[in-house]
Amino acid sequence: MAEQSQMEKMAIEARKAARAVQGMSTARKNAALDAVHAQLLASKDAILAANGEDRSKTKEAVDAGKASSTLYKRLDLGGPKFDAVLQGVRSVAALQDEVGRVSLARELDDGLELYRVACPIGVICIIFEARPEAAVQISALAIKSANAVILKGGKEAEHSNRALVEAIRAGLKEADVPENVVQLVSTRGEIAELLKLEKHIDLVIPRGSNELVRYITDNTRIPVLGHADGICSTYVDSAADVELAAKVVTDAKAQYPAVCNATEKLIVHRDVAATHLPTIGAALLAAGVTIKADEESMRYLPKDEKVIPVVPSDFRTEFLDLTIACRIVESLDAAVDEINTLGSHHTDCIVTQDTQAAERFMSNVDSANVYHNCSTRFADGFRYGFGAEVGVSTTRTHSRGPVGMEGLLIYKYRLYGNGHIAAPYATGEKTFTHRKIEPKYRVEQ
Amino acid sequence: MAEQSQMEKMAIEARKAARAVQGMSTARKNAALDAVHAQLLASKDAILAANGEDRSKTKEAVDAGKASSTLYKRLDLGGPKFDAVLQGVRSVAALQDEVGRVSLARELDDGLELYRVACPIGVICIIFEARPEAAVQISALAIKSANAVILKGGKEAEHSNRALVEAIRAGLKEADVPENVVQLVSTRGEIAELLKLEKHIDLVIPRGSNELVRYITDNTRIPVLGHADGICSTYVDSAADVELAAKVVTDAKAQYPAVCNATEKLIVHRDVAATHLPTIGAALLAAGVTIKADEESMRYLPKDEKVIPVVPSDFRTEFLDLTIACRIVESLDAAVDEINTLGSHHTDCIVTQDTQAAERFMSNVDSANVYHNCSTRFADGFRYGFGAEVGVSTTRTHSRGPVGMEGLLIYKYRLYGNGHIAAPYATGEKTFTHRKIEPKYRVEQ
Repeated sequence: MAEQSQMEKMAIEARKAARAVQGMSTARKNAALDAVHAQLLASKDAILAANGEDRSKTKEAVDAGKASSTLYKRLDLGGPKFDAVLQGVRSVAALQDEVGRVSLARELDDGLELYRVACPIGVICIIFEARPEAAVQISALAIKSANAVILKGGKEAEHSNRALVEAIRAGLKEADVPENVVQLVSTRGEIAELLKLEKHIDLVIPRGSNELVRYITDNTRIPVLGHADGICSTYVDSAADVELAAKVVTDAKAQYPAVCNATEKLIVHRDVAATHLPTIGAALLAAGVTIKADEESMRYLPKDEKVIPVVPSDFRTEFLDLTIACRIVESLDAAVDEINTLGSHHTDCIVTQDTQAAERFMSNVDSANVYHNCSTRFADGFRYGFGAEVGVSTTRTHSRGPVGMEGLLIYKYRLYGNGHIAAPYATGEKTFTHRKIEPKYRVEQ
Repeated sequence: MAEQSQMEKMAIEARKAARAVQGMSTARKNAALDAVHAQLLASKDAILAANGEDRSKTKEAVDAGKASSTLYKRLDLGGPKFDAVLQGVRSVAALQDEVGRVSLARELDDGLELYRVACPIGVICIIFEARPEAAVQISALAIKSANAVILKGGKEAEHSNRALVEAIRAGLKEADVPENVVQLVSTRGEIAELLKLEKHIDLVIPRGSNELVRYITDNTRIPVLGHADGICSTYVDSAADVELAAKVVTDAKAQYPAVCNATEKLIVHRDVAATHLPTIGAALLAAGVTIKADEESMRYLPKDEKVIPVVPSDFRTEFLDLTIACRIVESLDAAVDEINTLGSHHTDCIVTQDTQAAERFMSNVDSANVYHNCSTRFADGFRYGFGAEVGVSTTRTHSRGPVGMEGLLIYKYRLYGNGHIAAPYATGEKTFTHRKIEPKYRVEQ
C-alpha cells in the first residue's frame, strides 16, 4: 500500500470522526456547541491578537494598493462582531435538530416497515473567502448536523482561522466529541490533494468566485455544491405599482451592492415604461446608481450623466457595485425568457399587482429564488431563518438556494422486517401493500 | 459564436422542452402518459420487430461466445413482458405528483411569506444498460416529473430503444407536449460530447458498471448521480434466531444473485458461530451457493466441496453469482467496522432478536439501506413503492438508495411580499418573525 500523505491521514481522521458522531444525540451536540462557545469566549484575547496580525498585514497590502478596503473591513473580528459570532454558535444550538427526521414511513407488507431518515452526509470540505466568522458558523453547523468538516479559509484570514479553529477543537475535546469533526488546512496545494480523495470526502462546497468553483469541478470526482454568479433581475410588470417598484428596485440594487443577491438588471414592461421609468430612474439615481440603459428606456429615464448607454455584455454581467443594466421588454414571457437565458438562476423578482402574472413568472423562471413584490436581497440563509448558512447554491441538485443545516444532510432507508424474504414477491405469491403509516419511529436524538 | 454541434442542438432542444413543461399540470402530464401508453400499444408490432433484430444479433454473439445468455434474456420484450412494460406507464400515471409539494412554509415578517416548492431539475442525461424496458420507465418518470431526458441505452438494445422512443415521442406529440422531453442518442461519442455541455444539462445518471460511472465523473463538470458496486453484507448477531438467519441469508444471496442488492458477505458473531453456522451453511449449500470461508468459520460450516478458503480480496468483491464470503467477528462493532470499511454503502442487514442491537447497527452502518431481519434484496424502487426507478444511488448527496420521481426533483424558494425591502432588517429597525405557517399555497397541478 502506498504511504499515506498528510492530507490522506487528515481525511481518514475526518471519516473516523464523522462515523463516531453520526448518531450523536441532540443533547450531546448542543453541549459540544456550548463548550465551543465557552472556549471561543475564553480565547478572545488570543483570537483578536491573531486577527490583528491578519489585519495589519492586509492594511499594508491595502496601503500598497494590493488589496481592497472591503477585504480589510471584512477581516475585522473585534468589537460587537466578536459577540455576534459567539451569539451565532448559540443560534445554531437553538435550531431544531433535523438529523433523524423521518420523511417517508411506509408499510411494504405486514410487518415490513420502511422509514427514510435524515442523516449526516459524512465528510465535507468547505472552501471559503477571507471572512473569519465563516469558520465559526460552518463549524457550528457541522457539529449540529453531525458531519466532519475540513475547512480552508481565505489566506488573508489565516491566523484568525487558526486561532478560531484551535478554540473550537478545544471545546469539542472538552465536550468529549472527536476534535477532528473540525479540521483546518491553509494552502491551495492541500486543497488540490484533498480533491483527489473521493473515497474519504463526500462533498466539496466552494464559496467564492466562479473561477474557484470551476477549478474545483475540473479537478475532482467528489460532488460539488457550488455557487455561480448572482446575475439577479427585477422585472417591473405592466401591472406594477410604481412606488412599490421604485422602492423594491432601489433596495435590491443599492442596499448592499457587493453581494450575489443584489439586482443587476432592471427589466420593464413596455406598457409602463413611460409612466414608471421616470420614478424608478430617479430613485436609483438618488441612491447613487449608474443606469446602463437600452435605447428605448433611455427615452423615459431622467436625463443625467449617470444614465449611459448599455452594451450587450452588460446583460450578462454581475456588476457587484452601484451599476444596473436596464431594458424594456414587450411581455412577461419575454422577461422570463431574458432571465432564463441570460441570468444565473440565483434570485429574480416580479413587481406586479396581478397575482396571476406573479404565479406565471414564478413558475416559469428557472431560478433558486423567485420573488413577488420584494427585494432580491432577502435571498440569504439568515433571512430565511436557517440560523446560519454555509453558502448559496446555484446548482440544481441536492440543495438549492441558501444552504443551512438541511443542506448538510442526506438520508438512509431503514427497513424493519421479521424474516421477510424477496422470493414470494418475485413469484407473485405475495404482493406489497405500500401503505402509508404514522412515523412512530424516530431516531432518538 | 462557434457553430453548434448536433449534440449541442439536442441539449438546447432539451432545455427548451424542460422549460416548456416545468409548470405543466398533473392532468396534462397524465394525459401525456396515457397517449404514450396508447402509442406503445399501437406500435407493438414495430417494437417487437425491432426487438427481434436486436435479439438475433445478440443470439449470434452468444453462440460465438461473445455475449452472455443473461444479456440475451434481458433483451426480450415479447410475451407478458410487453404488457408489464405498458402497465408500468400506467403505474407512473397513478403516482402522486410530487412536483409542487411544499416542504417549507414560513412567515419571514408580516406579509412576507416564504415557500419551498418541489420542481423538476431540468435536463437529465441517463445512460443505462441493454434493458429496453428501462427506456420506457425512465421516460415515464421524466414526463411525470416534468424533466427533459436524453437517453443512451446499451448498444445491444439499439433498435428496440429507437422503436420505443419513437412511439413515446409520438404519444407526446399527440398530447401536445414537446416531443423533446424524451430524446435518444446511441453512441459513446455522443455521450462524450454531451458531458461537456454543463450549461444545458443539469444531471447525469449513469447506470451500469463502476468503470462507466468513473469514466463519467472523470469527464464532466455536470453533477453525477452514480451507482458504485453493491457489496452488501448480512450480519448474524449473537442474538439472532437461527432459522430466521438461514432463511434471510439464503434469499439475500441466492434469490437472484446477479443484482447489486444481493448479499455478498456473511458476517457472523463468534458467540453463535458454532450454533448457527451449520444451519445457515446447509441452507446456502442447498441453494447451490459456494461459501468462501475464513479459517474459523470453516470449522463450523458443513464439510462440502463448495466450502472453500476465502482470500482477503473476497471481502471487497461483488461476486454477482452464487458465491458468498464468510467471516466471524467478535462483536457488533467489529461487524459495523467491517461493513463501513470494506462494503460499498449500498444495503446491509443485521439479523437479531435484540432491537437495541438492531438500532445501534442501523445508526452506525453508513449505507443507503440498513435492514433488520429481512433480505437485502428489498432495496429496489418498485419494492419501496416508488412505482418506477431510474437507478439506485450510492452517492451521499441529492438522492440516495433507490431513485424514483422524488430523486428527479429539486425545489425553488418562492417569496411573496408587498413591497418589502431589506434595508430596515439590516439596520435592526425591523426583525424577522420566522414563524411557521400553514402551507396554504400549492402550485396548481
